[in-house]
Amino acid sequence: MNHIIRDTTVLTMNDRNEILERTDVVIENGIIAKIGPKAGETADNANIIDGSGKLVMPGLINCHCHVPMTLLRNYADDMDLQTWLFDHIFPVEDRLNEDDVYWGTLLGIMEMLSTGTTCFADMYYFMDSIASAVESSGIRAQLSRGQTCNEPGSDFSGNQAMKESEEFVRKWNGAADGRITAAMAPHAIYTCSPSYIQAIAEKAGKLGVPIHVHLDETVREHEDSLGTYGKTPAAHLYDLGLFDHKTIAAHCVCITVEDMALMKEKGVSVIHCPASNLKLASGIAPIPEAISAGLNVCIGTDGASSNNNLNMWEDMYLASIIHKGSKRDPKLITAAETLRMATVNGAKALGMSCVGSIREGNKADLIMVDLEKPHLKPMHNLCSALVYSAQGSDVCMTMVDGRILYQDGEFKTIDREKVDYHLEKVCKRLFE
Amino acid sequence: MNHIIRDTTVLTMNDRNEILERTDVVIENGIIAKIGPKAGETADNANIIDGSGKLVMPGLINCHCHVPMTLLRNYADDMDLQTWLFDHIFPVEDRLNEDDVYWGTLLGIMEMLSTGTTCFADMYYFMDSIASAVESSGIRAQLSRGQTCNEPGSDFSGNQAMKESEEFVRKWNGAADGRITAAMAPHAIYTCSPSYIQAIAEKAGKLGVPIHVHLDETVREHEDSLGTYGKTPAAHLYDLGLFDHKTIAAHCVCITVEDMALMKEKGVSVIHCPASNLKLASGIAPIPEAISAGLNVCIGTDGASSNNNLNMWEDMYLASIIHKGSKRDPKLITAAETLRMATVNGAKALGMSCVGSIREGNKADLIMVDLEKPHLKPMHNLCSALVYSAQGSDVCMTMVDGRILYQDGEFKTIDREKVDYHLEKVCKRLFE
Repeated sequence: MNHIIRDTTVLTMNDRNEILERTDVVIENGIIAKIGPKAGETADNANIIDGSGKLVMPGLINCHCHVPMTLLRNYADDMDLQTWLFDHIFPVEDRLNEDDVYWGTLLGIMEMLSTGTTCFADMYYFMDSIASAVESSGIRAQLSRGQTCNEPGSDFSGNQAMKESEEFVRKWNGAADGRITAAMAPHAIYTCSPSYIQAIAEKAGKLGVPIHVHLDETVREHEDSLGTYGKTPAAHLYDLGLFDHKTIAAHCVCITVEDMALMKEKGVSVIHCPASNLKLASGIAPIPEAISAGLNVCIGTDGASSNNNLNMWEDMYLASIIHKGSKRDPKLITAAETLRMATVNGAKALGMSCVGSIREGNKADLIMVDLEKPHLKPMHNLCSALVYSAQGSDVCMTMVDGRILYQDGEFKTIDREKVDYHLEKVCKRLFE
Repeated sequence: MNHIIRDTTVLTMNDRNEILERTDVVIENGIIAKIGPKAGETADNANIIDGSGKLVMPGLINCHCHVPMTLLRNYADDMDLQTWLFDHIFPVEDRLNEDDVYWGTLLGIMEMLSTGTTCFADMYYFMDSIASAVESSGIRAQLSRGQTCNEPGSDFSGNQAMKESEEFVRKWNGAADGRITAAMAPHAIYTCSPSYIQAIAEKAGKLGVPIHVHLDETVREHEDSLGTYGKTPAAHLYDLGLFDHKTIAAHCVCITVEDMALMKEKGVSVIHCPASNLKLASGIAPIPEAISAGLNVCIGTDGASSNNNLNMWEDMYLASIIHKGSKRDPKLITAAETLRMATVNGAKALGMSCVGSIREGNKADLIMVDLEKPHLKPMHNLCSALVYSAQGSDVCMTMVDGRILYQDGEFKTIDREKVDYHLEKVCKRLFE
């Protein structure tokens, strides 16, 4: 179906962060066909959407997530990382099956769509379940089977995760009309031996897919790396050749200025996950420094068990204010910069040049925000209002590939009652 | 009108943070008359509210605000404090009149009611306008005329702000069925001479009202105080006798352990304003230390020009995660502790023993939260869900003194279109 959004405001997120007023946006065959005042006056057979009092902007891109962990949302909080992970999270994850992962993913996708996320990068397991949920829900995603193996060796051809990863790439890369892309995901340097990381890098090269990795999330990871390898986690991955492949690196809490130079050289994108880093007490990533070093910085929520939601508006807000506060410099990371992290920078990180901004010819991955809320008035500055005042619930429409997936509280592709029904059954089995 | 909320979950915020399931809450004559399973089965002539899938909890108490500054929301951001204040905020504030303040206040009250705030403490000017808006909207507030005067002297009987302050106390303290209480407000140590602060303290004592003050908000205030008075801002106010009166102190970003002991001795409450402190780059207040020192800590949003909203859920979230992250200790400030700051601790700070918790005999200042949102599922832990996952928009009903002021997007006491109409006129005059 074609759509015309009439008489609206558009935050383009083009190179000049241009804002268009009183304009129409015409969407044809999943593409933003035309933008301009009265551009949508003559189109036939289109769904007309009144855009007055509303904003059209690019859909948000969540660059680091473990979506099925919605099942563990608020299951274990306010405790140290080791207790959290080993006593609470891992034991439940050991009991998960593909059915659990499917329903947990759909729940997470509902949350993401209702808060304006149109694309996410995920690393988990039972990836067929996640891909199926992405396919049926209509959202866009870069998916990867997280791999862990601390064995030494050179031949990992019999390694189960490696096999699953390769199968997943062959089956799903480019699927769902190109909405699903695949990546390889060495979990982290503390869960993967050097030779395993090299084997994954080699495989990624052969399959022609990018890399998604956790990098330097905690002081402990950083110090252990210095102790074991005599170098930082980033230098370790650089030397292993992982960064020779297009890479997104989540967290980067403890990266050094020297690491930034290595990452810049290889075009590694930094995924800032401020909510997770604060809540798990990992610390505050050196994001202003990373931006100064010329790195592409984007935003991720991480899983809902460490955030505890998948609401990009909250992470945008945090990304914009915590560096100001912790470094006592109010000019660090402006509202407009933050919006770029959550849109165009995310698209760049995931190699999706056709989304992340509102321009003719781009795929119609876009959202509408209701500007008529008391907390968005008066409207002195649109970018500030979106980052500092808005809530995720201000999103009133979410569209991917020109298809409306969420509008005014309703999910168009997901049966809410069915998800609730299965969720209850899943939780009974897992937790009772 | 009497109300019965049937078959609901209640977060009591009593001393044991008790949670009641499948219970009724009966509200009669503005008071929580009865709580218990089937307690509301036989009541006559009451408005029945279906509470299933919803939570009843105490209304949130915003202990530090300048509500009319909604007019300056997103007007000036991402700049240093001096430029922000002197080049942008003060020039507009100089042009404000009592009409502007009235409509700006109503806009702020709309935002507060829609996100579950039932009571706020405010410091501003044109206080009659603010009190009128509080009176007509039905919200509860402790109001004070902010006073500044850097003149020396001992007799401030001719001082305009002092006169207005006294008049305001005499006219409004206890007004609107007791929903309005008054306080005296020496703005800060850098805007008030020592003798002026002493005169305000003396007046507060005579009038029998408490104190609302900004305290040690920035490194500059702290260092200037050491330079000028040879002591910290808190020690300075202690020595001036201000703390001999019941005091709420906003910000406290730079208070020392010695300050905390002085404040504890006098029962001064600390108002944590994390969003404002981060966004204006003031820093991160030593809240875990203040709690350890036994101080009563509550939460404030500050004005919407430095936050940039009046959404207590965002400040609760920040209060709970920024200390974990900046001090790398995930056990600091649990979800339950945060909820106490925003409810019972706030009530204690403002001397309102009859609100802040859900118990029989208390005033019915309460809110309902819709638990059926995707981002609140599954429900493993109610306190965690409220602090780490919820949004302000999950509030579906706000009641003060037993009167519903907001429900499902509708304001019962405020004419939304009228506010919009006047707001447009006000902004035209102020900003064009």
